[in-house]
Amino acid sequence: MAVPPSKSERTRLRILDAAAKVFSERGYSGARLVDIAAEAGIQTGSLYYHFDSREALVEEVLRLGIERAFDATRSRVEALGPGAPPIERLRTALRAHIGTILAKGDYASAHARIIGQVPEEVQKRNYADQQAYGEYWSTLIAEAEEAGELRPGFDLYVVRMLLFGAMNWAAEWYRPSRGSPELIAEHLVSMVLDGLAAPPGGAAEASGGAPRRAELA
Amino acid sequence: MAVPPSKSERTRLRILDAAAKVFSERGYSGARLVDIAAEAGIQTGSLYYHFDSREALVEEVLRLGIERAFDATRSRVEALGPGAPPIERLRTALRAHIGTILAKGDYASAHARIIGQVPEEVQKRNYADQQAYGEYWSTLIAEAEEAGELRPGFDLYVVRMLLFGAMNWAAEWYRPSRGSPELIAEHLVSMVLDGLAAPPGGAAEASGGAPRRAELA
Repeated sequence: MAVPPSKSERTRLRILDAAAKVFSERGYSGARLVDIAAEAGIQTGSLYYHFDSREALVEEVLRLGIERAFDATRSRVEALGPGAPPIERLRTALRAHIGTILAKGDYASAHARIIGQVPEEVQKRNYADQQAYGEYWSTLIAEAEEAGELRPGFDLYVVRMLLFGAMNWAAEWYRPSRGSPELIAEHLVSMVLDGLAAPPGGAAEASGGAPRRAELA
Repeated sequence: MAVPPSKSERTRLRILDAAAKVFSERGYSGARLVDIAAEAGIQTGSLYYHFDSREALVEEVLRLGIERAFDATRSRVEALGPGAPPIERLRTALRAHIGTILAKGDYASAHARIIGQVPEEVQKRNYADQQAYGEYWSTLIAEAEEAGELRPGFDLYVVRMLLFGAMNWAAEWYRPSRGSPELIAEHLVSMVLDGLAAPPGGAAEASGGAPRRAELA
């Protein structure tokens, strides 16, 4: 039986949840400790009882950001079962990752929003976590290529970085008024896997992956 | 005959060039005024003779960032001539924009690197410039769709934002060791217009846009 968290542990979690929410909504420089404390329902001074510094709090939010995105993506991919074609695994991973980015308030959304904004030392300490997740993605992409499901000739590192740019920048521009997270995810998948261009000869319907207005609206 | 710039104007330009270089290489929080002054070959205190504040300098770099990207993109697109198919105009714009992002030291590269990092007021003052450039892109994308050259069903605003994320994030990760700017641009164009996925039936060669290893290496 799991030991229930102590009062102090519960407060620590509440502070982290509040920090993820405030960072994901306002970015790094726009998020003040006083806002995070208010969101968590505690005094600003009490933050220092749980975290040595603003940086220590940020680092833990970033660590959890990668962890949440990684867990969400891996569990959705694994739910496909062992026989799923690699490109289906990649498609599912794209949907899962951008889904975590578009969930405002989420740790992964906070990560995408602020990772380029935090001091370099903080960025560097987050690299190890990022690297493991990046390698997971490299494997997903490489397996789809090896199965002949991707067009040949791509540098897979460059592909991964372009994909992450498209997905993570959504933390900046996305507003629910733009459509559901599922709609944005379908745009991403359709654009990067099947391309924006109509196939020559106008055989759009034959290409299999074209988003249909009814599906998207 | 153009009046040659005064000594003061030349110094101002040198400071701006230095600032663009330092911001594009180190990001916003990593760029110190003392580094910018050293790069420009002047005393740090002299910066204030030309710019009222750090923010005023940043704002001018951001304004020029949009201007340079806009000029570079528009002139490459216009060089295609009036009869070019809209999708060719879009393809050329993608190559031109990411080219400015990958030119380290460039104002556009500095813009992409720091726009998410600067204080919100500074971001807001850059919106008007961004909007005009964004509308130019909206038109490029819409014209390709109207010509039947894009698969139907995409929300073109979402497409534009996903494209900008993929392109602008390259300011963060790109190093010349990853390949030439042209190589990265071809990956972008190939991925977003023709898609990563091999067409059903393995007709990769028939799809027209597949990058060929020889072209890319």
